[in-house]
Amino acid sequence: ARAPTSQTPTEQTLTTGPFPASRKVYTPGTRYPDVRVPHREIDLTPTVEMIGGLARHTPNPSVRVYDTGGPYTDPDAPLDLHAGLPHARPWLHNHPDLHTLPGATSAYTRAQNARADLADLRYPGAHTIRRARAGRTITQLQAARAGVITPEMEFVAIREALRQAEAFELRHQHPGNALGFQMPREITPEVVRAEIARGRAVLPANINHPELEPMIIGRAFRVKVNANIGNSAVKASVADEVEKLVWATRWGADTVMDLSTGKHIHQTREWIVRNSAVPIGTVPIYQALEKVGGVPEALTWDVYRDTLIEQAEQGVDYFTVHAGVRLAHLPLTVRRRTGIVSRGGSILARWCLAHHQENFLYTHFREICEIMAAFDVTFSLGDGLRPGSIEDANDAAQFAELDTLGELTKIAQELGVQTMIEGPGHVPLHLLQENVDRQLQVCGEAPFYTLGPLVTDVAPAYDHITSAVGAAVIGWMGVSMLCYVTPKEHLGLPDKNDVRDGVIAYRLAAHAADLAKGVPGAQARDNAISKARFEFRWEDQFNLALDPERARAFHDATLPAEAAKTA
Amino acid sequence: ARAPTSQTPTEQTLTTGPFPASRKVYTPGTRYPDVRVPHREIDLTPTVEMIGGLARHTPNPSVRVYDTGGPYTDPDAPLDLHAGLPHARPWLHNHPDLHTLPGATSAYTRAQNARADLADLRYPGAHTIRRARAGRTITQLQAARAGVITPEMEFVAIREALRQAEAFELRHQHPGNALGFQMPREITPEVVRAEIARGRAVLPANINHPELEPMIIGRAFRVKVNANIGNSAVKASVADEVEKLVWATRWGADTVMDLSTGKHIHQTREWIVRNSAVPIGTVPIYQALEKVGGVPEALTWDVYRDTLIEQAEQGVDYFTVHAGVRLAHLPLTVRRRTGIVSRGGSILARWCLAHHQENFLYTHFREICEIMAAFDVTFSLGDGLRPGSIEDANDAAQFAELDTLGELTKIAQELGVQTMIEGPGHVPLHLLQENVDRQLQVCGEAPFYTLGPLVTDVAPAYDHITSAVGAAVIGWMGVSMLCYVTPKEHLGLPDKNDVRDGVIAYRLAAHAADLAKGVPGAQARDNAISKARFEFRWEDQFNLALDPERARAFHDATLPAEAAKTA
Repeated sequence: ARAPTSQTPTEQTLTTGPFPASRKVYTPGTRYPDVRVPHREIDLTPTVEMIGGLARHTPNPSVRVYDTGGPYTDPDAPLDLHAGLPHARPWLHNHPDLHTLPGATSAYTRAQNARADLADLRYPGAHTIRRARAGRTITQLQAARAGVITPEMEFVAIREALRQAEAFELRHQHPGNALGFQMPREITPEVVRAEIARGRAVLPANINHPELEPMIIGRAFRVKVNANIGNSAVKASVADEVEKLVWATRWGADTVMDLSTGKHIHQTREWIVRNSAVPIGTVPIYQALEKVGGVPEALTWDVYRDTLIEQAEQGVDYFTVHAGVRLAHLPLTVRRRTGIVSRGGSILARWCLAHHQENFLYTHFREICEIMAAFDVTFSLGDGLRPGSIEDANDAAQFAELDTLGELTKIAQELGVQTMIEGPGHVPLHLLQENVDRQLQVCGEAPFYTLGPLVTDVAPAYDHITSAVGAAVIGWMGVSMLCYVTPKEHLGLPDKNDVRDGVIAYRLAAHAADLAKGVPGAQARDNAISKARFEFRWEDQFNLALDPERARAFHDATLPAEAAKTA
Repeated sequence: ARAPTSQTPTEQTLTTGPFPASRKVYTPGTRYPDVRVPHREIDLTPTVEMIGGLARHTPNPSVRVYDTGGPYTDPDAPLDLHAGLPHARPWLHNHPDLHTLPGATSAYTRAQNARADLADLRYPGAHTIRRARAGRTITQLQAARAGVITPEMEFVAIREALRQAEAFELRHQHPGNALGFQMPREITPEVVRAEIARGRAVLPANINHPELEPMIIGRAFRVKVNANIGNSAVKASVADEVEKLVWATRWGADTVMDLSTGKHIHQTREWIVRNSAVPIGTVPIYQALEKVGGVPEALTWDVYRDTLIEQAEQGVDYFTVHAGVRLAHLPLTVRRRTGIVSRGGSILARWCLAHHQENFLYTHFREICEIMAAFDVTFSLGDGLRPGSIEDANDAAQFAELDTLGELTKIAQELGVQTMIEGPGHVPLHLLQENVDRQLQVCGEAPFYTLGPLVTDVAPAYDHITSAVGAAVIGWMGVSMLCYVTPKEHLGLPDKNDVRDGVIAYRLAAHAADLAKGVPGAQARDNAISKARFEFRWEDQFNLALDPERARAFHDATLPAEAAKTA
């Protein structure tokens, strides 16, 4: 055992422990007994009524909620960051279609591992690298098409279904309006399989990420939220990044994208993946660019290819790939108000223009698919030409790229790779529907994953709110995952408070979308908190809130007396 | 001249002065030369491009924005709280259809004025009380129907039109989609008159509020925002309340409702109205209840009637009147999750049930109209049975009351009283449209004024965000004014930061609605800020933001160097 350095994370740097009045409960699978699905159960106090001078106590059933916090919110779970999280997917260990590699095959990984000066930064635990055996199909998409319900599928079915206590009194729910989409009445493993098989849902779960608690992204399910983390040249510490991951998932992030661009990206990522119970997404071109000294023109397919393998072997669950930024689209951006604002998009545009060649991610797309299929890494096809302002919303450049993404979606799915599509950005309210309609049509209903969108540009410092408006509405319209925006968007780097503000704003937006599209059981939490509010059960109201701490603090700022919270 | 006490406001307690890089500009009327319409003009820096090693400077035109700040943001305006604001409506002084009363006619006002112990609290300036001459029709609605364009109508036409500099380069705007409503291409005094005459817009402007800068509320115009202020038993100081008014309008509140329930309501209100450039709304039943010792059963028509006159003579511009809470509706609320959550609604429900009589506001409705018509006080017909939870949204109680409000709208308009209708509250996204459709139909398109609505109940401490989502969408659908919600909603009393957070969240929601419905010129500010952002003109980006201070502070928290803001 080695002593941690100041760079490596310790349990003490993390925010852990349960939410107030909350217990972690695990539901086992029925098909797969080693499936063990976490939920959070919020216990409530009884309703007290005075009847004829006597107090009558009526118990209130506990409320079960979806839980993204992982083992960090379970006081009984062992926590050792240097050993990584316990494996929630133990079935990967003896999977007949996987073989264990003797070590990393990425040239970059091998070179990094050989450097003695990085010993202190390196993740010290074991990580077995697996890959599909030759000729075997191992992705969730391939399994679903073959009619196989995987353990991951049973896991997410139980996770989404959120069975409330028997005879749960708060079952009343407004019929939803999913705007033409037929929501399932009940979430079963077969529903999950069918949605994945149709390409309408993805279950991002790299075979090298056994720590993952599987989750699903698709229109038939609860709307998900992604939070971005990542160090940069300005700020960098492994401990900070792992805490950001834990912090974001504590407040409700369903996936986390690691957008690091600073030093030691490889080592930081290993710490993150080994300690993450949620899918990790990356944008591999960022790291590829670091490897060629930050000069876009110097990028090559070989460097990029090795980066894909490096990250796939670490266990990254989904890759943003800007393969839709085609040379022919670039003239369409010239007259824009805000040009190309996607970082990946600008890198590739610069490469295309410098070489006057087609984007190498487009020309090598099938090879990319083959690598990703071997690890079951999911595509998040990047929208490198997304609008950067209200003015540029829904323009020719954006939709030309979307058409290409539709073409690529077909290829990826044919090759067995799960695929979702990234979307804008900046769109006024009345142009949101066109985005969803076009994406559904062009990409065959593959899950849509949008960044907000912001519905106006005039409120920097409040862009978590402007974008939560767009996110809630577009989630209702059919978007499956919402990438959060923090109050610091357009202005600076988010701190912990900003991450919390951003995640909660998006959780409430996603929940509003769930209520509107009619996710079964979504309204139970609203009903329970409203009942608590009406009965002045303040503690229950706090405990049922998305952010119990802040709700309590705001209340206590005005009326601090304990008496004002019970009675 | 008397020395101010600690209770009375001083200029030093107020937040005044212009926004950065902003000038107040006044546009005179062409029909009425004493009309003088304020706007804020934001000056921008030039665009600097390096061309062949030389810097080319291209000026950027200033951006004109709607300005709710009143004289408080004009460094050249005289400011003396003890004398009240300068009169923006000087034409009232010699209005042929008004006569000047020798003093207040309200019995309560006269009794308060006679009390020596209140001398220190009393507003010391002059206030001339006017009333319509017998037989004369003086409301904006009556004028509009008679084909008369009043000075107030010309004022708001100029105010809304926001003419940008000639050949303004940022004119590009997405065609709006007002969801079946025909937005005017240009705002003219005749458009204003016609909308008021149809009852589709209100111009709340009590003849006893000459300090008012007129504004208009209606679907054909920019979506407006109301902020609530008001002291309570817990906190009370006249100085605090006036500062809240100034603070809320500084950030963008178009109207302010004074919901005071504590001591010295009468005196506080006088200070507020005399120093307010925005319409002031109240809920007279709150004060009537104070007068009868807080016992709802003790309320009488006489006490209420005198309260209406008291407040109308002071210059309150609109009254919330819960005349739709009918005895017959009350059984419909029994099985609700959250009963009756409107304070006015519960007071009247209690009165109805105690006396087993019809609501006296309903039975005396015509007399209420006659009083309001004599001062041109506008109705805000209250929704006392609005839902208090997602579960209760769009239920029988809510819509039964709405039907009654439709019936009352017709009566009020026939009697010449401008009328808008209050709406919920708590409504999931997919049930918003039904609220708007029913209200438009039942109330003949009278302006709809909603409280949010919150689109989920699960996020106390973030309800400014959950409700901004509902507000933006329902604003797009046709709601004319949005009552703000602060982060402390359901938890405690808002402080200044909460008011700012709430107002900005609603300003951005209202602006998002304006973009969507296609208010002419609404996109200019988005275009200008996006251009500044793309060109790294940080100072311009801050100055164009709804909250320049916070945008700057957030930026400086990460990159404090001055260099990082120009470059």
